[in-house]
Amino acid sequence: MSSRRILVVAAHPDDEILGMGGTIAKHALHEGAEVTVLWVSEGSSAQYPGDHQIAERKFAEAEAAAKLLGVSRCIQSGLPDMRLDTLPHIEVNKPIESAVREIRPDTVYTVHPDVNVDHRTVFRSVMVATRPYSTSVRRILTYATTSGVEWTPPFESSFAPTWFSNISSTIDAKVAAFDCYTTETRPWPHPRSARAIRATAESWGTWAGWECAEPFVLVRELSD
Amino acid sequence: MSSRRILVVAAHPDDEILGMGGTIAKHALHEGAEVTVLWVSEGSSAQYPGDHQIAERKFAEAEAAAKLLGVSRCIQSGLPDMRLDTLPHIEVNKPIESAVREIRPDTVYTVHPDVNVDHRTVFRSVMVATRPYSTSVRRILTYATTSGVEWTPPFESSFAPTWFSNISSTIDAKVAAFDCYTTETRPWPHPRSARAIRATAESWGTWAGWECAEPFVLVRELSD
Amino acid sequence: MSSRRILVVAAHPDDEILGMGGTIAKHALHEGAEVTVLWVSEGSSAQYPGDHQIAERKFAEAEAAAKLLGVSRCIQSGLPDMRLDTLPHIEVNKPIESAVREIRPDTVYTVHPDVNVDHRTVFRSVMVATRPYSTSVRRILTYATTSGVEWTPPFESSFAPTWFSNISSTIDAKVAAFDCYTTETRPWPHPRSARAIRATAESWGTWAGWECAEPFVLVRELSD
Amino acid sequence: MSSRRILVVAAHPDDEILGMGGTIAKHALHEGAEVTVLWVSEGSSAQYPGDHQIAERKFAEAEAAAKLLGVSRCIQSGLPDMRLDTLPHIEVNKPIESAVREIRPDTVYTVHPDVNVDHRTVFRSVMVATRPYSTSVRRILTYATTSGVEWTPPFESSFAPTWFSNISSTIDAKVAAFDCYTTETRPWPHPRSARAIRATAESWGTWAGWECAEPFVLVRELSD
Amino acid sequence: MSSRRILVVAAHPDDEILGMGGTIAKHALHEGAEVTVLWVSEGSSAQYPGDHQIAERKFAEAEAAAKLLGVSRCIQSGLPDMRLDTLPHIEVNKPIESAVREIRPDTVYTVHPDVNVDHRTVFRSVMVATRPYSTSVRRILTYATTSGVEWTPPFESSFAPTWFSNISSTIDAKVAAFDCYTTETRPWPHPRSARAIRATAESWGTWAGWECAEPFVLVRELSD
Amino acid sequence: MSSRRILVVAAHPDDEILGMGGTIAKHALHEGAEVTVLWVSEGSSAQYPGDHQIAERKFAEAEAAAKLLGVSRCIQSGLPDMRLDTLPHIEVNKPIESAVREIRPDTVYTVHPDVNVDHRTVFRSVMVATRPYSTSVRRILTYATTSGVEWTPPFESSFAPTWFSNISSTIDAKVAAFDCYTTETRPWPHPRSARAIRATAESWGTWAGWECAEPFVLVRELSD
Repeated sequence: MSSRRILVVAAHPDDEILGMGGTIAKHALHEGAEVTVLWVSEGSSAQYPGDHQIAERKFAEAEAAAKLLGVSRCIQSGLPDMRLDTLPHIEVNKPIESAVREIRPDTVYTVHPDVNVDHRTVFRSVMVATRPYSTSVRRILTYATTSGVEWTPPFESSFAPTWFSNISSTIDAKVAAFDCYTTETRPWPHPRSARAIRATAESWGTWAGWECAEPFVLVRELSD
Repeated sequence: MSSRRILVVAAHPDDEILGMGGTIAKHALHEGAEVTVLWVSEGSSAQYPGDHQIAERKFAEAEAAAKLLGVSRCIQSGLPDMRLDTLPHIEVNKPIESAVREIRPDTVYTVHPDVNVDHRTVFRSVMVATRPYSTSVRRILTYATTSGVEWTPPFESSFAPTWFSNISSTIDAKVAAFDCYTTETRPWPHPRSARAIRATAESWGTWAGWECAEPFVLVRELSD
Repeated sequence: MSSRRILVVAAHPDDEILGMGGTIAKHALHEGAEVTVLWVSEGSSAQYPGDHQIAERKFAEAEAAAKLLGVSRCIQSGLPDMRLDTLPHIEVNKPIESAVREIRPDTVYTVHPDVNVDHRTVFRSVMVATRPYSTSVRRILTYATTSGVEWTPPFESSFAPTWFSNISSTIDAKVAAFDCYTTETRPWPHPRSARAIRATAESWGTWAGWECAEPFVLVRELSD
Repeated sequence: MSSRRILVVAAHPDDEILGMGGTIAKHALHEGAEVTVLWVSEGSSAQYPGDHQIAERKFAEAEAAAKLLGVSRCIQSGLPDMRLDTLPHIEVNKPIESAVREIRPDTVYTVHPDVNVDHRTVFRSVMVATRPYSTSVRRILTYATTSGVEWTPPFESSFAPTWFSNISSTIDAKVAAFDCYTTETRPWPHPRSARAIRATAESWGTWAGWECAEPFVLVRELSD
Repeated sequence: MSSRRILVVAAHPDDEILGMGGTIAKHALHEGAEVTVLWVSEGSSAQYPGDHQIAERKFAEAEAAAKLLGVSRCIQSGLPDMRLDTLPHIEVNKPIESAVREIRPDTVYTVHPDVNVDHRTVFRSVMVATRPYSTSVRRILTYATTSGVEWTPPFESSFAPTWFSNISSTIDAKVAAFDCYTTETRPWPHPRSARAIRATAESWGTWAGWECAEPFVLVRELSD
Repeated sequence: MSSRRILVVAAHPDDEILGMGGTIAKHALHEGAEVTVLWVSEGSSAQYPGDHQIAERKFAEAEAAAKLLGVSRCIQSGLPDMRLDTLPHIEVNKPIESAVREIRPDTVYTVHPDVNVDHRTVFRSVMVATRPYSTSVRRILTYATTSGVEWTPPFESSFAPTWFSNISSTIDAKVAAFDCYTTETRPWPHPRSARAIRATAESWGTWAGWECAEPFVLVRELSD
């Protein structure tokens, strides 16, 4: 697949780094793919209601991180954080459907449906936007957002990875990108710390025989 | 992946055609891959005990079918049909491990673990033979053997396909290959009839937007 | 069970044909059962907002199809298409509870909860309306709406059929009924085409040893 | 279904009473069905090796219990207790296949595959013996053997009942039948005591709105 | 754990008695724990809209029942009954988060997510309120509300208990506490009757070797 | 629970360290519990058939490791490695039942049933040996053996941890104990290397807010 087009859908800014920062860097910097990131919600109004400055600062951080990983384009839908479940399903579908139509990606990555209600909402809208008719999409994968996937009740958890991406050469880029999110960084052993990110990448690496890996669940591959 | 090497593991002769005859033809005839088929058991001693003629005839049919699909090489382990569960696990592993070591495939296809006890035994041995250390294998997929997967009790069934292969251009080869198995052919509406094979391929096709498809479950992809 | 009363609950007009048109015809035309179809939403406002003509045309099609299958009575709740998730659960329950109370069916069929958000909402309301106290309902089955069940992410899919209905003698009625839905018909290999409907019925037939079948999941049988 | 023929497959004598004694009585005594019970193993050699007297006594108890419930015929295969997993799968299939061929039942009940290794083995052989081709069997249900189903590790447990049988009028017969098994009776609160049997029947009754019930899982219904 | 602090979260008044009345009494009366009950919704506006008297009476009953079991403190959030799904997720989180912050419980019990939409909503908010960072909570268990858990469709049911609590010495207190809920009591064999409560407790007792038990699912234990 | 008695059941020497070395040290060295380790198979005859020296060396390593962690007693059953599935189930039960009878543990830890056939066999025998009647066992937990649990096909994987043990203060002891197994150590990034063990412990730590953790699945807790 020369000249690939990849769409990464996130519920909130930083999902995409925690879940697949190393794989974004591999696609964009090493393989020359065109990577677009779409943030469906703004990711700060719930914690900091009415504070527009922090929303702006968060997006500045998000774009800096994306740039560092080689992302070609960033899209902000600006739907309300932590309240996606109160919108009609069809309203959450729209920005995703329009990105799929415009970019015509061959591969779509989306956040896995875990305990976070926004993650579940975004995931289901991605399923609608990529249904297998008159679509360019050949491959759909979900990524695990740390500080989300671990807190999912075990009997509702479905993150059983089938796809492993070698990020041994881009783990440093992942950590550097997450460093851009100064609003989201926490001290170790919080999952949103540099040391936790490295340990988790090394731990998944042991599943595949590599130094560092990121795990994914394949939703669908259409192999022509 | 130019010059791919593919290993197809079957429990009994005809599993590989019912499950993925169209995909074998696509790989071998259209994509130039080197495809090896390994039959772990001989597939006739249970039904026709002591009848060596029928065992020989069945293998002749199996090889004719394989040839028609472009298979490069066929391996018969000759373990006893319908009695694999009475062998130590380690004895079933051996022929599979030795094929993996010798062929060094990038992709392994294996029968899905369904109600058939030989299918479950072979599947588990494939898992051991392809564990992700010092192995050439990058992708493992299971295929559904019709007249097996349908008879699996629903609460034990795990064939939820994630991978679809377009066989619109090789469905005729699949049907022709199955025709070689005169010992196994049954009149419609038995799943082992030409019309049932076509209807099933068309039905799976509607999952992907194609005329004909074969479904698979991805067990593991190691994406370097 | 002489003189049976059957209630078929659909989220949108055409769910009931795609999922169980052959079985409706068998019950109504061959077995003399009284079959009522309830459409919970109107099924067109999302795609054609504000276009009342198309909504009316769609219902005319739906009633023509139902008539052809021998349905005794059709009920339209008229709740908004693709927005059922924004209504309080209790508001979706109401039309279903009232149909159950009035008709006193022994058997209720409902759409299976798949990736379509309206399907999930309707299914859950049917569960409330048929809870096993002071109810006439002895049997609850779900049907699979093609172009819905196939697009469900595998780790969220629960359509593992336990009940098969022989529709060899009513497959023609099913196809004819779907032909009434001119707004919904698509060219093959789309699942909403005559050829796809036939192939899918033949493929499920191989699960049961019949020419054509429709699959269902039993939710509950109360066997006095 | 007038003049029904029913086959009840048990791994050990007493499985059939604990799991479905009330339903056997309902079928045989109230509905006039012809009920055959098949015990695949002898159920005592593991606990009392070499003691033929106890084996004989246990079968005498089993037949007395069956007679009390109206069972028409009892078959003993006599395979070794607690060692079914060491026989080739095909050897366990044989007595079940031969009973199915001879009796031509419309309904087969079998023990649910729980933590007990003999239960799993028998269940899988029943699946082979009832596969949906050239068979008389229209309905397959599993029953839960108390002191078995409760001890199954939760992540391996699949007894999620879909079928409830009203045994309000036969609970006394169930308790009386179990009383015949003096070798198996234990003091309350052991599940193999009269009081535990009644409490469990009443507890399942609350699932269906009846005084007493027995739960089952539907494996397959072929509805012509 | 001397001087334990326990928080019991219920969707509606009476969930806590049906699910774990015996265990509440054991903790509060026998072990000297400080038990707080939080009712997230008022539990009557759906059935009796606009009738404030019944809402008040129901809370009087709830508090009488709680007092009888030794509960130290009751909190009413007063969110609307049967309509929790129409509130933003974040609004349901608030009363639970604030109770967790104030009480600093070591153990949280919550209603299991079953077919009841309010149960699912409350459960997910408890998951957010107890995520494992800077929290006092070491143990989270779900309880099964009878007349809820039984009516859950089997393919959506996840109540597979891993934790059993011996309530042989507090079953009488449980029944007495439920008697306080005169608005909710129904005649046997309804699950909300004294006899059904006793039979169910005895039936779960047989899982553990006790006269009476209540079952739970462990969500998470943090063992320092 | 003062003066606790703990039984750790392993299929092969080193399972217990990889899965729960840190928790063994915590129980034995910090909490004063009496910990017994039972190795069901000898763990070397499959790889090194006939080589008694290596079997002896491996047990010497195993005992050195156990001693370092404070284990009170080691039991070797000596059943054949990688061939447990060929023994009658009842023969594998025996050494475990006899250890449970003699030691009367309150807590039993056992290897989780993963892709390794010996792990599944041992797990099932532990289930039989700890069934909840006339037993001392109050708690059963499974641990994940690295280089086993990761290689399990996702649709057969059931290791969804519910119990986390803080091993921040014993991670060094775990690594030191594994160092004793010179026959089993591999270079990083193999899961059987010191660095992989540390990264995995830190990664699980992020699930609970600790520096290092080991994960478990609770099978059953009987809370008197």
